[in-house]
Amino acid sequence: MKGIVTGGAGFLGSHVADVLAESGHDVTVVDLTMTERHRSMKVDLRDIESLSVACRGSDFVCHLAAVGDVYLAAEKPYLAAATNVTGSANVCEAAIKAHVPKVIYASTWEVYGAPRYQPIDEEHPCAPDHPYGITKLAGERLALAYGQLRERLSVTALRLGTAYGTRMRPNSVFSLFIRRAVNKQPITIQGTGRQSRQFTHARDIGRGFALAIERAAPGFVFNIVGDESITIKQLADLVIAEIPTSLDFAPAREAEVPSASVSNAKAKRELGWQPQVPFGDGLRELVAAERSAMVA
Amino acid sequence: MKGIVTGGAGFLGSHVADVLAESGHDVTVVDLTMTERHRSMKVDLRDIESLSVACRGSDFVCHLAAVGDVYLAAEKPYLAAATNVTGSANVCEAAIKAHVPKVIYASTWEVYGAPRYQPIDEEHPCAPDHPYGITKLAGERLALAYGQLRERLSVTALRLGTAYGTRMRPNSVFSLFIRRAVNKQPITIQGTGRQSRQFTHARDIGRGFALAIERAAPGFVFNIVGDESITIKQLADLVIAEIPTSLDFAPAREAEVPSASVSNAKAKRELGWQPQVPFGDGLRELVAAERSAMVA
Repeated sequence: MKGIVTGGAGFLGSHVADVLAESGHDVTVVDLTMTERHRSMKVDLRDIESLSVACRGSDFVCHLAAVGDVYLAAEKPYLAAATNVTGSANVCEAAIKAHVPKVIYASTWEVYGAPRYQPIDEEHPCAPDHPYGITKLAGERLALAYGQLRERLSVTALRLGTAYGTRMRPNSVFSLFIRRAVNKQPITIQGTGRQSRQFTHARDIGRGFALAIERAAPGFVFNIVGDESITIKQLADLVIAEIPTSLDFAPAREAEVPSASVSNAKAKRELGWQPQVPFGDGLRELVAAERSAMVA
Repeated sequence: MKGIVTGGAGFLGSHVADVLAESGHDVTVVDLTMTERHRSMKVDLRDIESLSVACRGSDFVCHLAAVGDVYLAAEKPYLAAATNVTGSANVCEAAIKAHVPKVIYASTWEVYGAPRYQPIDEEHPCAPDHPYGITKLAGERLALAYGQLRERLSVTALRLGTAYGTRMRPNSVFSLFIRRAVNKQPITIQGTGRQSRQFTHARDIGRGFALAIERAAPGFVFNIVGDESITIKQLADLVIAEIPTSLDFAPAREAEVPSASVSNAKAKRELGWQPQVPFGDGLRELVAAERSAMVA
């Protein structure tokens, strides 16, 4: 099928576009910057007309363009709002104008806010208090509302675990730890290091999108999160096992999102999704890539 | 104190500005259109710089500017997102730039979505599925997040009942019913007429803002809703008691928000708020105003 990946020049979007292309889809990336990896169009999410031109003739839109950096979202909530909420509504509006029948919205496990029970399934209430989670949830709800209000559009939301993989942002905890180790500096853990994440490999997320395009019923929401819960301390230890260095601790960062256990049972049951990259393998791949990038 | 009322040229904002001015505040209205009722500045919510200039020297901002028409929000969710979410973030950003210490955010009972228990108190989960409720909730959460993340800003949210009063929008159910009756046409109820609303007089809402400015602790949320639940059928009967005409029924409108009973106990207890306009009195005042406007 023909499809659009918004944000496809970025870290996660590029992996999603890769997986979709390998699955046989004809992919066009729509982003603020161009990419060499795929057919590429430079479009601003604020511009419904250009989005709609980019969408023409497509069978689906995977919408990943967002302010995805939680620290940037906390620093500039108005930018997160414009991009993640208004931008998502604009993408749905453009999809409808262009007669695209399906939008897959990249949401996040951070929409849930503080856990009321665990593991968190898709029925868990959503009460985020961080600008990132607030704006991603509003974008999700608006996209789903578009799907409900407009007969021609089917919308599915994937609530993604914390993604990792090659080409990550340089301020990700992975890149920071690996860079410190390569430079023979101590790895610094902010906070206790006991907070955990179900790190989810970007290619596994890409497979979630491919399955959602194929199988997801309209209006459905799925948690797409890895099986393994990894603490920040475990992550540091794994990096140190690859590149020996020392470890120290610093005060926690503001706006740190606490740990939560999230269920991926619905995605396994209803989409047939299964994470395929064990965390150790994904991390070694990333260490090798970061190392060779630093050497180069 | 000196303060700003955004949306103060509109129906509800103008009543809030009136009440604040009568309470001794020095009020400036910030809106897309000018008003003669108060000192007035024409500012677009998209323009943080101009908002910040408008806010300079103020002690509070009451933020009511929004896409408040649920039908318009359903027709143009992207406009509701830009105004209600990004616009609200911009107002907070501008308040911080201008060193304004307090923002009172006009939220709505419609943020709750389908009731899980009734009466709905402020602890009830929020799961709106209509673009109006979705965008108002996201604006509320972003404003509260600004209050949490920035030391200099205190934010309070008032979740308002369905407001009524003079100068209502011509597509409000009140204006429609009264206009039909005055024109000796039958009043048409869309749906069963059994859906109810805790209609809240705009001046009572104004008093809620005045009390919040004076007394509300940072980060707090209050339901500001009338005591009486009035069905649409009762509303029609009350209009017909004032201006005799007949009654008929039509199919329900899309995106109709179902009834819910909302508790105002916290606002009474913690703000000392008390609705003062009995519904019958408010309605008669409105009928008289609409009648004289139509004659004129």
